[in-house]
Amino acid sequence: MRVSIIGATGYTGEELLRILANHPAAEIKYLTSESQTGAKIDSIYPHFNHFYDQALVNLADLDKIVADSDVLFIALPHGHAMEIGKKVSGQGVKVIDLGADYRFKDTAVYEKWYKIPHVHPDAKAVYGLTELYREAVRTADIVANPGCYTTASILTLAPLVKNKLIDLTSIVVDAKSGISGAGRGLNLTHHLPEAFENVKAYNIAGHRHTPEIEQALSELAGSQVVISFTPHLIPMSRGILSTCYARLLDGVTASVVDEAFHALYGQEYFIRLLGRGGYPATKNTRGSNFCDLGWHIDTRTGRVIVVAAIDNLVKGAAGQAVQNLNVMFGLEERTGLTQAPLYP
Amino acid sequence: MRVSIIGATGYTGEELLRILANHPAAEIKYLTSESQTGAKIDSIYPHFNHFYDQALVNLADLDKIVADSDVLFIALPHGHAMEIGKKVSGQGVKVIDLGADYRFKDTAVYEKWYKIPHVHPDAKAVYGLTELYREAVRTADIVANPGCYTTASILTLAPLVKNKLIDLTSIVVDAKSGISGAGRGLNLTHHLPEAFENVKAYNIAGHRHTPEIEQALSELAGSQVVISFTPHLIPMSRGILSTCYARLLDGVTASVVDEAFHALYGQEYFIRLLGRGGYPATKNTRGSNFCDLGWHIDTRTGRVIVVAAIDNLVKGAAGQAVQNLNVMFGLEERTGLTQAPLYP
Amino acid sequence: MRVSIIGATGYTGEELLRILANHPAAEIKYLTSESQTGAKIDSIYPHFNHFYDQALVNLADLDKIVADSDVLFIALPHGHAMEIGKKVSGQGVKVIDLGADYRFKDTAVYEKWYKIPHVHPDAKAVYGLTELYREAVRTADIVANPGCYTTASILTLAPLVKNKLIDLTSIVVDAKSGISGAGRGLNLTHHLPEAFENVKAYNIAGHRHTPEIEQALSELAGSQVVISFTPHLIPMSRGILSTCYARLLDGVTASVVDEAFHALYGQEYFIRLLGRGGYPATKNTRGSNFCDLGWHIDTRTGRVIVVAAIDNLVKGAAGQAVQNLNVMFGLEERTGLTQAPLYP
Amino acid sequence: MRVSIIGATGYTGEELLRILANHPAAEIKYLTSESQTGAKIDSIYPHFNHFYDQALVNLADLDKIVADSDVLFIALPHGHAMEIGKKVSGQGVKVIDLGADYRFKDTAVYEKWYKIPHVHPDAKAVYGLTELYREAVRTADIVANPGCYTTASILTLAPLVKNKLIDLTSIVVDAKSGISGAGRGLNLTHHLPEAFENVKAYNIAGHRHTPEIEQALSELAGSQVVISFTPHLIPMSRGILSTCYARLLDGVTASVVDEAFHALYGQEYFIRLLGRGGYPATKNTRGSNFCDLGWHIDTRTGRVIVVAAIDNLVKGAAGQAVQNLNVMFGLEERTGLTQAPLYP
Repeated sequence: MRVSIIGATGYTGEELLRILANHPAAEIKYLTSESQTGAKIDSIYPHFNHFYDQALVNLADLDKIVADSDVLFIALPHGHAMEIGKKVSGQGVKVIDLGADYRFKDTAVYEKWYKIPHVHPDAKAVYGLTELYREAVRTADIVANPGCYTTASILTLAPLVKNKLIDLTSIVVDAKSGISGAGRGLNLTHHLPEAFENVKAYNIAGHRHTPEIEQALSELAGSQVVISFTPHLIPMSRGILSTCYARLLDGVTASVVDEAFHALYGQEYFIRLLGRGGYPATKNTRGSNFCDLGWHIDTRTGRVIVVAAIDNLVKGAAGQAVQNLNVMFGLEERTGLTQAPLYP
Repeated sequence: MRVSIIGATGYTGEELLRILANHPAAEIKYLTSESQTGAKIDSIYPHFNHFYDQALVNLADLDKIVADSDVLFIALPHGHAMEIGKKVSGQGVKVIDLGADYRFKDTAVYEKWYKIPHVHPDAKAVYGLTELYREAVRTADIVANPGCYTTASILTLAPLVKNKLIDLTSIVVDAKSGISGAGRGLNLTHHLPEAFENVKAYNIAGHRHTPEIEQALSELAGSQVVISFTPHLIPMSRGILSTCYARLLDGVTASVVDEAFHALYGQEYFIRLLGRGGYPATKNTRGSNFCDLGWHIDTRTGRVIVVAAIDNLVKGAAGQAVQNLNVMFGLEERTGLTQAPLYP
Repeated sequence: MRVSIIGATGYTGEELLRILANHPAAEIKYLTSESQTGAKIDSIYPHFNHFYDQALVNLADLDKIVADSDVLFIALPHGHAMEIGKKVSGQGVKVIDLGADYRFKDTAVYEKWYKIPHVHPDAKAVYGLTELYREAVRTADIVANPGCYTTASILTLAPLVKNKLIDLTSIVVDAKSGISGAGRGLNLTHHLPEAFENVKAYNIAGHRHTPEIEQALSELAGSQVVISFTPHLIPMSRGILSTCYARLLDGVTASVVDEAFHALYGQEYFIRLLGRGGYPATKNTRGSNFCDLGWHIDTRTGRVIVVAAIDNLVKGAAGQAVQNLNVMFGLEERTGLTQAPLYP
Repeated sequence: MRVSIIGATGYTGEELLRILANHPAAEIKYLTSESQTGAKIDSIYPHFNHFYDQALVNLADLDKIVADSDVLFIALPHGHAMEIGKKVSGQGVKVIDLGADYRFKDTAVYEKWYKIPHVHPDAKAVYGLTELYREAVRTADIVANPGCYTTASILTLAPLVKNKLIDLTSIVVDAKSGISGAGRGLNLTHHLPEAFENVKAYNIAGHRHTPEIEQALSELAGSQVVISFTPHLIPMSRGILSTCYARLLDGVTASVVDEAFHALYGQEYFIRLLGRGGYPATKNTRGSNFCDLGWHIDTRTGRVIVVAAIDNLVKGAAGQAVQNLNVMFGLEERTGLTQAPLYP
């Protein structure tokens, strides 16, 4: 199919290009950039030398882009995708948005956390956490690709919430992310001498991935879930580790927990179950679309601790977007996503 | 005073030497190493060239060491210090043990978690978390210097527990450590190509610092506290960030929390209160004896989240040991600990 | 074709597996390990979960391995491959050795630098720097895959030496390598706390890749070349940057230098010419088989400075080995090597 | 003495503050910042909490600053210090400039490489490479503190050049620097995801430290020296390793080389001679004012290879500036510079 990427110069756009370079059915039509229109993509990302040498076009050409594309990936800061989605609605092009605009069923939640009005509230977007919403993705016109922290955190907790194994008021998610998750924009916090040999938390009790995690868990639980979510910056480029804590309900045994994970994910290729006692490591997923999961029962405290590792730019962004693309276009879901992780 | 270091070639011994190089009252007498007896310390640690060129002696010389020393720092794997402490008991030399042997009031707890019998159960050791046990340290003959994770975790929670502000069953401690915390011994997990660009948890629900944290918190609470503690390895050399979660009891306001921190630590030089909303970062403490603390109230979930940053080898080991040394010998507590953190 | 890897648990073996996982014509038959016979490869490298779950076999099974394989990759420390190569000689299996045993035309050079007798001196091995020896590789039974530093250094200098543009006595090669180049064996130098935030040179005037570089350059020059080669360890996992200095002969202009690079490499897919003034960066090649080259004329000193960047485990080892495999078996040379570099 | 720092918010200014925090004779009077006037220094650098809480003042207050200071450290981009130096000339305040303005005897060289006119050409500045120019520093009113690459490179070559042991046309300097050397200003190249797991050269044949190295070597040689100098960026915060190559003149033996180093540096505290065969490592100097030197004779090529390691912010900037301060004010040269390196 013909693919265009709206916002191709950020890390998410770059990663889509990396993955699609080995996707047999995707043909890249247009790449856009407002600030660098006219530049060649391999001058901005020299590692793409021999892969891509397209010149970046401007969003002003949206009509032409839509006419020549079967699907648009939108990799822009929030606020832009809903404008574009509204414009192209009904023109036959599918949209996969890697930002936040279409992630919330209730646009009031979006407006509260993102502090701007939603301009396309009647869009019928599908939340693209593929393993949980695959059937809806299949026929969607707009897919809201989940956030990076979100993907890692929902996947850890879904089997527990869905099967009513945990106290829903007891959930704590402590997540650690490499710095590419913050994007390519310059910021003192991400300047190497500042970020190196350093760890810190940020946006405690206020990170925008919180309501997204809560929305999915609430839906699975059938009642409102509220969580504590704390993100941390780790001195590395790629990878998220999400460590999730919850209190097991009375009588829930270890083997019941095991079964919940195997029942939900046993057939999922991109979810690798390391089992009870397993220790996911971000490096084992680097460059791949896998989410590795391990869980632990703390009998002293009655808690279950589940750990997930993903590559934030792949399963946490571009990889899952391509997984959704495959589902939407009836392709084998692994198409273009068959690379083994890059280790060491 | 005359100081000897039993086990001088690990990172903890090395760090003691670094700090004592600028301590005006400490005179280094003996450095021991069983595996490298006779070698010069600056051949093992070339950065000490121009600071130390002593040859390492053997523990077989313990009598001579004791005769010529006012204080022994013991920086050995657990199990050894209690043998030495027992031997030197009553000989007038003070002992500061940087290992686990003397950390537990109830040696049964030690025996359960460390899986060896305690050979010196009647020792009157004092737990050397200086800010909380300063008066006892002052007259102690044996000080059990706390673990690195332990220091960071107890200091975050002490004001809350002491003032009965939190639900004691709700405590979760999620800690992140640089790899020097695992010592200088070789291990595939700490081989640079494996550890770089990688984060993972380890020893979930089983790390030996857990009972140590629980002992101190229980004492402060006046009742048994059980916590979930999860350590993580971060791709850096030094630093621990400890993120602690607990549910506030009904009616506990933000300003009550603020007061608890200021009341306990307001006069403590080595505890820097970043205040409510503050974000400690390990790099701001690197090479120094500070513990930086910031706390956050998550009104949506009713939790308080407290974050501590320390240098694991300083406030988490050698620095606190020197702080205790100063207290034990009646010196100004900051002596030798006046270096500003090394940034960036 | 049927492929077996002799020595599958080191980083070179691991990287062969990573690349071959996407090679349409390669079928993995046997993986050997002496120390971990019987273990499954994905228990040693968990990132291979879902890719490989073979159990490792022992070299004692060599006859069976040979019978079932069309080609053996040997990824063992030097000294072993020549024993194996001798044994399997004439049995119809091709050999690609990633170690040093077959790299020297004159086995006396091997014996001098590696300090062991050569047991297979009459082997007709071909030096597998594909771009320079492609025709010979095509029909070779034994290919000696070049070293990592070697590949980067020969490729920078070959156009200059071949076209007699530089003073052959003036060559200095200053190379910087990530730590995976030193393998998976444990060593204090590669322990993260020691290697992190650290750079140092090693084996000055004595590194074993020196005679290998000299052999290739001498052949190109038609006379003996002697160089100064200095390797350095850089705190990262993958990547080699090789900075090469030489004095231009009188009258050699910048455009003559440009032409020499374009003439030799203009048609080579895996050599990306960044041109005069170009700055290769190791990250732009990470995970790929590219060698990026840029050159600079220092008119003040009359020198040409050429910089090469490669991924030491790919173009410097397993990738080039697969490139050679493709050439030996008449496949398109890029087969299995089409991944874009992993950036950022 | 009363000290003010003009330009206190960059890494060089920050490092001066770190060092001076333990300098018994220095009293900090003013810290300036144009862009952050009024802010407190510990809000910009929170690690200075408990050390400094001065508000930053503006350069518009220069008269007051001069009146209240015995010495000004100027830590500004080039072009500013000469304006200030000219203004304060004759007012009794000493100046130590950490930038380039006063480094060149021949201001035409400055104007050629820095591309701006020199406004204070008649200043009697002394080049502050302390070990080589100590006597002149003692009585100087303006000291031009050397650049970071410069310090490491001149110190390696000085004994060889001074004693006429090497071919002056054969010098190649290949230097590797941590990223703090590029300052605190934001730049895509230094954004962690870009700089991490990456090495590259920059400014080949054009770096501005080249003429500075050449000036010092030419003076030592008594004739014009021209060198090839190549800087590289290494994924770490602090440290420079400089690897220097030169051809030994006929008849120069290894012991003659050894003697040259010992004669020049044998009594220098801050230069640690690791001897022939020694391997300096940047980590061994981190946070300290040491320059570690090791040299190697490559008998195959007739070259001597000398390696230097320094902390770019200490011996390469603020530490040497304090060393010069001590010399200028008649203090013991090590004052404030007695910290052991921070390792690991």
